[in-house]
Amino acid sequence: MLDKMHIEKFIERALEEDMPLGDITTDNLIPEASVSKAKFIAKAPGVLAGIGIAKLVFLKLDPETKFTILIEDGQKVDKGAIIAEVEGNTRALLKAERTALNLLQHLSGIATAANLYVEELSKTGGSNQNCSKAEGSGARIADTRKILPGLRLLDKYAVRAGGARNHRFSLSDGVLIKDNHIKACGSISAAIKKIRALVPHTLKIEVETADLDQVREALDAGADIIMLDNMDTKTMAEAVKIISGKAITEASGNVNLERLSEIASTGVDLISVGAITHSAAALDISMKFI
Amino acid sequence: MLDKMHIEKFIERALEEDMPLGDITTDNLIPEASVSKAKFIAKAPGVLAGIGIAKLVFLKLDPETKFTILIEDGQKVDKGAIIAEVEGNTRALLKAERTALNLLQHLSGIATAANLYVEELSKTGGSNQNCSKAEGSGARIADTRKILPGLRLLDKYAVRAGGARNHRFSLSDGVLIKDNHIKACGSISAAIKKIRALVPHTLKIEVETADLDQVREALDAGADIIMLDNMDTKTMAEAVKIISGKAITEASGNVNLERLSEIASTGVDLISVGAITHSAAALDISMKFI
Amino acid sequence: MLDKMHIEKFIERALEEDMPLGDITTDNLIPEASVSKAKFIAKAPGVLAGIGIAKLVFLKLDPETKFTILIEDGQKVDKGAIIAEVEGNTRALLKAERTALNLLQHLSGIATAANLYVEELSKTGGSNQNCSKAEGSGARIADTRKILPGLRLLDKYAVRAGGARNHRFSLSDGVLIKDNHIKACGSISAAIKKIRALVPHTLKIEVETADLDQVREALDAGADIIMLDNMDTKTMAEAVKIISGKAITEASGNVNLERLSEIASTGVDLISVGAITHSAAALDISMKFI
Amino acid sequence: MLDKMHIEKFIERALEEDMPLGDITTDNLIPEASVSKAKFIAKAPGVLAGIGIAKLVFLKLDPETKFTILIEDGQKVDKGAIIAEVEGNTRALLKAERTALNLLQHLSGIATAANLYVEELSKTGGSNQNCSKAEGSGARIADTRKILPGLRLLDKYAVRAGGARNHRFSLSDGVLIKDNHIKACGSISAAIKKIRALVPHTLKIEVETADLDQVREALDAGADIIMLDNMDTKTMAEAVKIISGKAITEASGNVNLERLSEIASTGVDLISVGAITHSAAALDISMKFI
Amino acid sequence: MLDKMHIEKFIERALEEDMPLGDITTDNLIPEASVSKAKFIAKAPGVLAGIGIAKLVFLKLDPETKFTILIEDGQKVDKGAIIAEVEGNTRALLKAERTALNLLQHLSGIATAANLYVEELSKTGGSNQNCSKAEGSGARIADTRKILPGLRLLDKYAVRAGGARNHRFSLSDGVLIKDNHIKACGSISAAIKKIRALVPHTLKIEVETADLDQVREALDAGADIIMLDNMDTKTMAEAVKIISGKAITEASGNVNLERLSEIASTGVDLISVGAITHSAAALDISMKFI
Amino acid sequence: MLDKMHIEKFIERALEEDMPLGDITTDNLIPEASVSKAKFIAKAPGVLAGIGIAKLVFLKLDPETKFTILIEDGQKVDKGAIIAEVEGNTRALLKAERTALNLLQHLSGIATAANLYVEELSKTGGSNQNCSKAEGSGARIADTRKILPGLRLLDKYAVRAGGARNHRFSLSDGVLIKDNHIKACGSISAAIKKIRALVPHTLKIEVETADLDQVREALDAGADIIMLDNMDTKTMAEAVKIISGKAITEASGNVNLERLSEIASTGVDLISVGAITHSAAALDISMKFI
Repeated sequence: MLDKMHIEKFIERALEEDMPLGDITTDNLIPEASVSKAKFIAKAPGVLAGIGIAKLVFLKLDPETKFTILIEDGQKVDKGAIIAEVEGNTRALLKAERTALNLLQHLSGIATAANLYVEELSKTGGSNQNCSKAEGSGARIADTRKILPGLRLLDKYAVRAGGARNHRFSLSDGVLIKDNHIKACGSISAAIKKIRALVPHTLKIEVETADLDQVREALDAGADIIMLDNMDTKTMAEAVKIISGKAITEASGNVNLERLSEIASTGVDLISVGAITHSAAALDISMKFI
Repeated sequence: MLDKMHIEKFIERALEEDMPLGDITTDNLIPEASVSKAKFIAKAPGVLAGIGIAKLVFLKLDPETKFTILIEDGQKVDKGAIIAEVEGNTRALLKAERTALNLLQHLSGIATAANLYVEELSKTGGSNQNCSKAEGSGARIADTRKILPGLRLLDKYAVRAGGARNHRFSLSDGVLIKDNHIKACGSISAAIKKIRALVPHTLKIEVETADLDQVREALDAGADIIMLDNMDTKTMAEAVKIISGKAITEASGNVNLERLSEIASTGVDLISVGAITHSAAALDISMKFI
Repeated sequence: MLDKMHIEKFIERALEEDMPLGDITTDNLIPEASVSKAKFIAKAPGVLAGIGIAKLVFLKLDPETKFTILIEDGQKVDKGAIIAEVEGNTRALLKAERTALNLLQHLSGIATAANLYVEELSKTGGSNQNCSKAEGSGARIADTRKILPGLRLLDKYAVRAGGARNHRFSLSDGVLIKDNHIKACGSISAAIKKIRALVPHTLKIEVETADLDQVREALDAGADIIMLDNMDTKTMAEAVKIISGKAITEASGNVNLERLSEIASTGVDLISVGAITHSAAALDISMKFI
Repeated sequence: MLDKMHIEKFIERALEEDMPLGDITTDNLIPEASVSKAKFIAKAPGVLAGIGIAKLVFLKLDPETKFTILIEDGQKVDKGAIIAEVEGNTRALLKAERTALNLLQHLSGIATAANLYVEELSKTGGSNQNCSKAEGSGARIADTRKILPGLRLLDKYAVRAGGARNHRFSLSDGVLIKDNHIKACGSISAAIKKIRALVPHTLKIEVETADLDQVREALDAGADIIMLDNMDTKTMAEAVKIISGKAITEASGNVNLERLSEIASTGVDLISVGAITHSAAALDISMKFI
Repeated sequence: MLDKMHIEKFIERALEEDMPLGDITTDNLIPEASVSKAKFIAKAPGVLAGIGIAKLVFLKLDPETKFTILIEDGQKVDKGAIIAEVEGNTRALLKAERTALNLLQHLSGIATAANLYVEELSKTGGSNQNCSKAEGSGARIADTRKILPGLRLLDKYAVRAGGARNHRFSLSDGVLIKDNHIKACGSISAAIKKIRALVPHTLKIEVETADLDQVREALDAGADIIMLDNMDTKTMAEAVKIISGKAITEASGNVNLERLSEIASTGVDLISVGAITHSAAALDISMKFI
Repeated sequence: MLDKMHIEKFIERALEEDMPLGDITTDNLIPEASVSKAKFIAKAPGVLAGIGIAKLVFLKLDPETKFTILIEDGQKVDKGAIIAEVEGNTRALLKAERTALNLLQHLSGIATAANLYVEELSKTGGSNQNCSKAEGSGARIADTRKILPGLRLLDKYAVRAGGARNHRFSLSDGVLIKDNHIKACGSISAAIKKIRALVPHTLKIEVETADLDQVREALDAGADIIMLDNMDTKTMAEAVKIISGKAITEASGNVNLERLSEIASTGVDLISVGAITHSAAALDISMKFI
């Protein structure tokens, strides 16, 4: 699901950053022919993401490494679970260890955080993985662009591994008309009309709205997606009623676990949450030499 | 304090990632000549880091941008504090907004987390910024290599902004002899002897120890720094007594806020904490157009 | 409309390719301080695209160059028209000349070719720049991914300068379900259902169809865009009738100027044409020193 | 004949451009283990160029791909001819398809265009592949620097595949003294004298001339190659007579198929044609899944 | 001992530089299937460095190449010694030849120069490979940052192959307090105190001193390494006596083979010599086809 | 004379290599606003090359730096001569110092070595800067491809600054037919005939010969340049007589200062010397803060 060419370059840069001149301890002390074994062990429960990437880190340093994945991305792990086993050149194992763990812990942290929201939603009426209204009600969790430079594809992948959905990837592949854009064009309808003529017809047009007037204007102007930004629950419910399935609805702003069921109860299609990427704590995973 | 050439390349790549084909909404809807103003406002209390980097993001897109920093990195901010003001080309402001905020929130999150540990330490006898024993007792918080690819220099900078210290930057600029290295060489003393002859004399030699026997062996072998890894408090105190200032001591493993004063009480010089980089939540900061 | 950061890097690489070791004739024979003037003259009629890019080529080599654009991109030029004037360091002018002309001629060639199709359409009922059915009937010309490596953004920009529209930019920012995808999923409906759950909700789902059965299946499955691939005019007209505005329709395959009005008469929304990018002849433009 | 290291990097960049985030349709809908077969079929007659490059595109995405070339570069293909067969991972086949075809069609388009000129020449007395006067008379077709950025080596390769010859590759590896250079040095002879002392002795010195006086001056000054720029046929014939084999002669400017035999009749050694690279239409070739 | 990932990129760039468009002689004249054998022969005595790198140059161009190393890096070679044998694709052999030889000759030149100093030292009391005072007296030769761009890791590797030691690798991984730094901080002691609080505790602090007052001040301030810069032998001896093993001592400036034993007699720990990298003549080695 | 775009990238990489994480001493100890002055002083006599490059190193780190060149490249300097003065930000000065000096000393070392050969030649009949036989007899010194990776353009520039000439820059921009090529083609004449048809007509064809039979064959086959490889003086003189001005002659192999006048006396046009690039000692130049 992740583009291999992209990931391999990413890993190469990561390893170069961590050893611009090699690992001076390992290169000088471990014999070139030495071979070792190690295991990846979960030290806390969570949802796994990035074990395939961790594997590529080891393979990058030594293509002969045997790396056996025991638990796949997207699966839940309990504390103590053995996630993978690795066997190969000791130098390569020692050099890859920290970079692999950093990525695995970070991505699993995001998957775990995303999954927490998804599960919370499912309690309150069921999370719905599909955006077509036809397939039943229920909101879905979506990510945002609140992601650190260089990590976009990986973090978005971890979000999916956690059971949530991706919003646009960048400013280039999705249209989101905000306040400034509306002012510059005079009205929501003028903005939509103008942009529709200029971007590929393959993209939906999303408009950010702050109140019910804007919601109505966006709806009339043919917005494909209407973001309900920082609205209180009552207004949001009203907005969803007004839109009534004629556009996809997205709740955004001030979302947290506590408020989630309330937001979902308004009937919105998507709830976007920055915290699942910008504030997820790493999932504790260790690599133990045997 | 951060190398400008490095940061500018980093920012360039970050912006390219967020708009490989430009910002299709802004480029199509905002007139090229439009000018706007905005403020950066703290929405939660914390320690600031990255405002200078945020400024460079805006300048990268438009060198004419006026960006006035009101609170400097390393300072504490209260909720509601106005951190900076920016005025310039509207397109540039809209394009830079998310990338600048992502970095600023992330780095301030790290500075805030680091500072939490530093302040906790200072309660229990005072944090000591300097590693020379001669200058008084007191432990210091140090970071680790538990940092995501591409963010190393920035995260380490944020750690310093939070009042903590940096450990080695990479596998290339510091020697850390671990279990595998010791086994490969036969003994701690053989490992130290070998490595000292091979790396620049400008580097100190650090050895990871798990028990008091290893501590004694490392000390006898002339280790410059002795890491006390995952030791219980009693053993750690014993180790510090044995070492008795003849090497720098570093506590590592299972460090958290609760245990911090106890660890510090052992007399160790440094306490390294992975969580300040791998699990710091973003500090909530927003950019408001005026 | 074109991302400046991207274009400047493109130009830098172009100039490096044309003079990996400098211009050995000019560097050795023209005094460093020499200054010259030149004009860009159209030697054939067409639609201009790329004059702003040509300007950046000169500015890259000497930021002091005065480059006055007299005719803007998107405008028609007659044979003999003076498009721009340039004045500056002679070395820079001589080095930039060919690279600037190559790009300007190529992009104007594409704009001219695209415009030929747009104008042909407008004769037969009017080209419609906007994809929303609400805004009136009439087909629009769209481009394809039949574009050479490295030139994607520029060629797509030239297409817009010629009055036509862009299709998706890459395999990453648009969904197009083809025969192989349908087979792998069992049915169009299974494919749409699966993909909708996995890609950002900001993207429309396009399905390629070869006959009316597939058209009906795609429509029932909720396709946002239905490509009518290599259909004869009669079948295409039937398909448009069946779809009846419930999805965007796109005619593709065997499109040429002769068949254009016939295709447009079927009522399709978009007609995609590979030839406007892969086979456009360069527009003849020269740079004359004065 | 094409440097493999260069081509592989070129292909890598091309694929990255076409799928910065992967092929979202294929990655999500085609099972990883799926295998397919396809054929490359000429849909119009022409001269082939780039089939080896097309092969490398597939191998880049999956080194296991079986790609059987049935017709080699430089050979003529008839409409309907099967050029190659490919068998391998379906995902790789679908992702490589457009990039491979774009290159193959473009390069074959150039080879076909170049060959058209070469064949036209051969009717009028025979094209001569070798530049040494000793080996008999007859002009040869040469290319120019009218080539798009990034495509230089490939396009020049396609020119050779079409039976024509390459002119200098860049401003760095050939000397061409033009009007501006002559003026700056005072005379052709001063320019030649100066440049000969400054560039490697391995390079021939070419001078662009516009009339017979300049031809004579260039000849007297020891020019190795004399370009007869935009001369009418009579003047060109006169120039060739004057030069009388003491320098290589190159006709340039206003060359087209119609005027070709006339130009060749003057006895020039080389006729350079920009159109074979800047305006060649793609050769229609398709990839059909079986 | 050299990071393979780094070296392979270095070699790739080196080959690209030497054949941006391939080897036009070889690509056009040598059949693709041709196979050859050659030997590397020392044409002068010296210490070898870089034969493993030379091997990688050949493998980069053709992974099938058989390259048998007969003499390892760090060993002495006599005139006429056969260093390695290579067998493989003729084109690859011809293309790799010069790049491989350039590196091998250069690195062996450095190893030979470094070894000359090391051997000279060993005559005068023995060179000591280890920096710990405990292991006996005797100075060691160290390199400097007087190394050309791009060659740092290789040259430093060659220094080690010649039996000498590396100083810091860059301005980023070692602290060296010089005159300007001292002035800016007011005193050596202020400078040391300040820097110790800001750089990783894994780095030793070195101070450059010009006279005995500075030596004393540096010593009192706790400098880990004291550079005795451009001191006459008598002052240097005095300085070593004052320091008396409480810091590592490094002689620097005006070092040459003649003065070496005199400098060593002062008892300094390290003698750094720029000439072994910036002025080492290439060791004459040739590649003979058999 | 050196391509600025190329040099600036080179300098950027050089500085990044020397301070991947900044200059940790200077960044931490020197105030950001501090300003200083320094001079570049020759500490040995020689020919200068690279002062303009040194200037660019400083400007790269701080575009405000005032750098006054007092002696230009190509000029001779005496011991003690002040070459340039620099004034600007102290941090920038300290960071640029070593990189600038490394380049300046290296390039001046090459210019000085090249000039030594040029002057030696001029004693024995005069060096001739121009390759045309018409301009009088006298050999010229030429460089080779014996140049380290990354330094090609700079080293070749320094060769010219020293008064010598450049041979081909790479395997891509010059033809040199050697033993292996001749064998593969059957004869010198077959090789020349084949290559002439395949490379741009702008390149001269050089053939390496080892004896008079090969010289005659190369001459008959129309070689433009004949290399006399490792010939004794008598054979070389014979060869020059046979060639008699019908091709450029180049002496190569076993060239040193002692044998130079003897080689020149044979009447060869060019004498290529690897030592001026691969074994030139750095010219001693220092930067003194005032």
